[in-house]
Amino acid sequence: MRACIVHKPDSANVAREVLEFLKKLGVSAEIIEDWRLAKDFDFIVSVGGDGTILRLLQFIETKTPPIFGINTGKVGLLTHCDRDFGKHLLKAIEEFETEEFMRIECAVDGERLLALNEIAILTAKPARMINVQVFVDGTKVEDIRCDGMLFSTPIGSTAYALSTGGPVIDPSVDSMLIVPVAPFKLGWKPWVVHADRVIEAKVDSEAFVVADGHKVVSADKDSKIVLKKSNASVVFFKVENRIGKIVEKLRLIR
Amino acid sequence: MRACIVHKPDSANVAREVLEFLKKLGVSAEIIEDWRLAKDFDFIVSVGGDGTILRLLQFIETKTPPIFGINTGKVGLLTHCDRDFGKHLLKAIEEFETEEFMRIECAVDGERLLALNEIAILTAKPARMINVQVFVDGTKVEDIRCDGMLFSTPIGSTAYALSTGGPVIDPSVDSMLIVPVAPFKLGWKPWVVHADRVIEAKVDSEAFVVADGHKVVSADKDSKIVLKKSNASVVFFKVENRIGKIVEKLRLIR
Amino acid sequence: MRACIVHKPDSANVAREVLEFLKKLGVSAEIIEDWRLAKDFDFIVSVGGDGTILRLLQFIETKTPPIFGINTGKVGLLTHCDRDFGKHLLKAIEEFETEEFMRIECAVDGERLLALNEIAILTAKPARMINVQVFVDGTKVEDIRCDGMLFSTPIGSTAYALSTGGPVIDPSVDSMLIVPVAPFKLGWKPWVVHADRVIEAKVDSEAFVVADGHKVVSADKDSKIVLKKSNASVVFFKVENRIGKIVEKLRLIR
Amino acid sequence: MRACIVHKPDSANVAREVLEFLKKLGVSAEIIEDWRLAKDFDFIVSVGGDGTILRLLQFIETKTPPIFGINTGKVGLLTHCDRDFGKHLLKAIEEFETEEFMRIECAVDGERLLALNEIAILTAKPARMINVQVFVDGTKVEDIRCDGMLFSTPIGSTAYALSTGGPVIDPSVDSMLIVPVAPFKLGWKPWVVHADRVIEAKVDSEAFVVADGHKVVSADKDSKIVLKKSNASVVFFKVENRIGKIVEKLRLIR
Repeated sequence: MRACIVHKPDSANVAREVLEFLKKLGVSAEIIEDWRLAKDFDFIVSVGGDGTILRLLQFIETKTPPIFGINTGKVGLLTHCDRDFGKHLLKAIEEFETEEFMRIECAVDGERLLALNEIAILTAKPARMINVQVFVDGTKVEDIRCDGMLFSTPIGSTAYALSTGGPVIDPSVDSMLIVPVAPFKLGWKPWVVHADRVIEAKVDSEAFVVADGHKVVSADKDSKIVLKKSNASVVFFKVENRIGKIVEKLRLIR
Repeated sequence: MRACIVHKPDSANVAREVLEFLKKLGVSAEIIEDWRLAKDFDFIVSVGGDGTILRLLQFIETKTPPIFGINTGKVGLLTHCDRDFGKHLLKAIEEFETEEFMRIECAVDGERLLALNEIAILTAKPARMINVQVFVDGTKVEDIRCDGMLFSTPIGSTAYALSTGGPVIDPSVDSMLIVPVAPFKLGWKPWVVHADRVIEAKVDSEAFVVADGHKVVSADKDSKIVLKKSNASVVFFKVENRIGKIVEKLRLIR
Repeated sequence: MRACIVHKPDSANVAREVLEFLKKLGVSAEIIEDWRLAKDFDFIVSVGGDGTILRLLQFIETKTPPIFGINTGKVGLLTHCDRDFGKHLLKAIEEFETEEFMRIECAVDGERLLALNEIAILTAKPARMINVQVFVDGTKVEDIRCDGMLFSTPIGSTAYALSTGGPVIDPSVDSMLIVPVAPFKLGWKPWVVHADRVIEAKVDSEAFVVADGHKVVSADKDSKIVLKKSNASVVFFKVENRIGKIVEKLRLIR
Repeated sequence: MRACIVHKPDSANVAREVLEFLKKLGVSAEIIEDWRLAKDFDFIVSVGGDGTILRLLQFIETKTPPIFGINTGKVGLLTHCDRDFGKHLLKAIEEFETEEFMRIECAVDGERLLALNEIAILTAKPARMINVQVFVDGTKVEDIRCDGMLFSTPIGSTAYALSTGGPVIDPSVDSMLIVPVAPFKLGWKPWVVHADRVIEAKVDSEAFVVADGHKVVSADKDSKIVLKKSNASVVFFKVENRIGKIVEKLRLIR
């Protein structure tokens, strides 16, 4: 079994501890700098925070190997334990139980974006609204002037989408959340649609399309923006009580 | 093929037109007064509004025959056409395409409630809050003083739950929505959980548990309230574009 | 100087301590059972919680004497200290600095209600909406189906109105807040209007009009409901930092 | 009496009609290109939309002469009539009744901003939150990660602030509204504070401070941002029914 370790710059020490730990277990492990290689290992240990995992995912455009997250920052939703990782990582490797989460794939003109949390369409000019039209399987469901529009996975419902009027969505609900940022309109609602639907969006002026806060592509009034569930899902080592983990995280941002 | 017709008191005329229409098609049809009998027909035509269908459903505690709704009031989400029903009803019977929607089953102490839209737990005393605790598969997700708590199906997300901070949920998303009414708390979120989860609720004082605004049961601090997806789903003749129908309905309550 | 003491039934002990304390200070004090007498004293000490003060206020239909609140329950917004009242009460009496808060006066047909927090118009039947129309100086600003409508003072913005989409209002802002409870409508906003405006409301079916959760009057579709700022304001001993006290209270309901 | 006319580039025709109209009335009028001169006239006619008036105001750093707005675009809140201006402008000049609205003055390090609608503190990087702390008369009322924070006048409550969870505020209520944009937090409330309060804000990273969507200043973690009611108020010719005008405008953005 071959494992790779990726880490946030400030967490190199912990990464080395993980390396020793894995070697003692007989796992062939290495710390990698070129994260594009991560997709070919049997599993990945990420040392950092949710941000580290989100950045890693930008380098893997297929279904991922199982990821184990060691949190060295604030408690995250995507990580499995803090820096005292020993028994947690051991248990994960022994049982090797995993769970799979959807990503959203977004095509903007020629470009392709992948997001575990959300695709955000945002005005390119601060304090200048854009108009966004949203179509679900061809039916227009929203036409709104706003700062932006989010298309979130269930996992992402506690990320950027939490800042809007969206609900918390159980990750086992096969769905996508559509919710505006700062809508200049009376009378709108977040939408939770089935993950098999195809969503299209149109903007009336210059906008940024942002995947998980990391990758940015430009769009304008002529752009064709299409969003759907991706096959390139993300596999994590299993968290015992996913609902409990969300509740715990929400408590931290009260 | 045997059909029954149920109607709102003020829509007897239309019901008789439907009767004639069905007979001409060779369908053995009758207008029934005892709605408990409806469950044994091959399909049901409801003449009235969403309220008529919701009331009918209180008489059917199993999976229903396919229902066709003729709307004689304001446009509803559950009905298929207005009183000019001819070609719509004909098409429905010829094609006999149906769709199935979940109901929520709620056990309050000994009693059992069924709801297509929502189960509402509401304070029994106006302007006096109750405290409601909500558990999802045993994990406490909410503990809140409020006027009440709603447990809604996707179809019900545009009924009472629309009055709260809840999202609109695509009926094909297999889920339940949990959302408080007038929560006296900073920091809460609607929850969308998988329909296979089991929900429990506890109140700290006298409350009403209301199914679809029709059937009411009392509860108090010793009550055990359990909610889950029911097997007694509701079958409707198919609506072509369900998302479009929701968009259209939302426009009416702007 | 003559003072009276009112108390919650479970706080008789503390009330007696206050009595002794005031006598030692040379204040002619007495514990009163008939709260209608309170209005004729030079100041009032209330022992209990916010609820005790709100109940007391239902007995005083004119501008009140200064009130000092000793909190024996959960921390309230209207009280000045907890049961260790000595130095706080002493300071209050010595300095005798006061502040004045508006009440809303509501006339329902012949009846008159007074509220320090809010007047709530609520459906008389749980899970059955009412339609409420609201007019500000004769202009219709809202027409909405809902569970109810609140008309709150700034002080009341952290009471029942906090359960709705309303803002927190600085008590020194001379205004009234209008906000629906569970509005079945897309597209509404809370309104903050000048306290000198006259508000009228109409309902389409049976409703309760409730002052501060204590006094209830019935209304129906023929009722004339008029709300305005009352002359019968409420005087409290001054709280040093009112904004700070609100922030502190909000922290408790996170 | 001397009047000046300012206009949107596409409304030069209407501006010339206004010029003729005023001359016939015996008013000494001119179309000005250098808007800094506008402050020295007896009144100003603005031809364009709300945006034209907001832009004009950036050139007047004192209390303004009375402004009459002719709307050549979408109906605005700040304008008095559409391009068929004759009788409206005549009546305004004959009666010369005016009303005055506050502006917010914002000092960012050395720089000074003036806003009729709102001061917005916004993240300088799309999809990257900033942390904003808000102090009212020295008391911290908010500490929040968000896309931004708005400080709005009552008039501005139907501008950018309408896109957030803020209320509609009657312009005669002497107050400022504080409300976050996309707050990553459970448990926050808009605040309506007295206009005489002094507000301070601190950010933790690079931000833009934007006045009425027009003037932009940069701020960072060392910036001192102070907001208060300005003496440089804005005078408009009076609108008969201000509440009615707001209701009408809200209807347009449903």
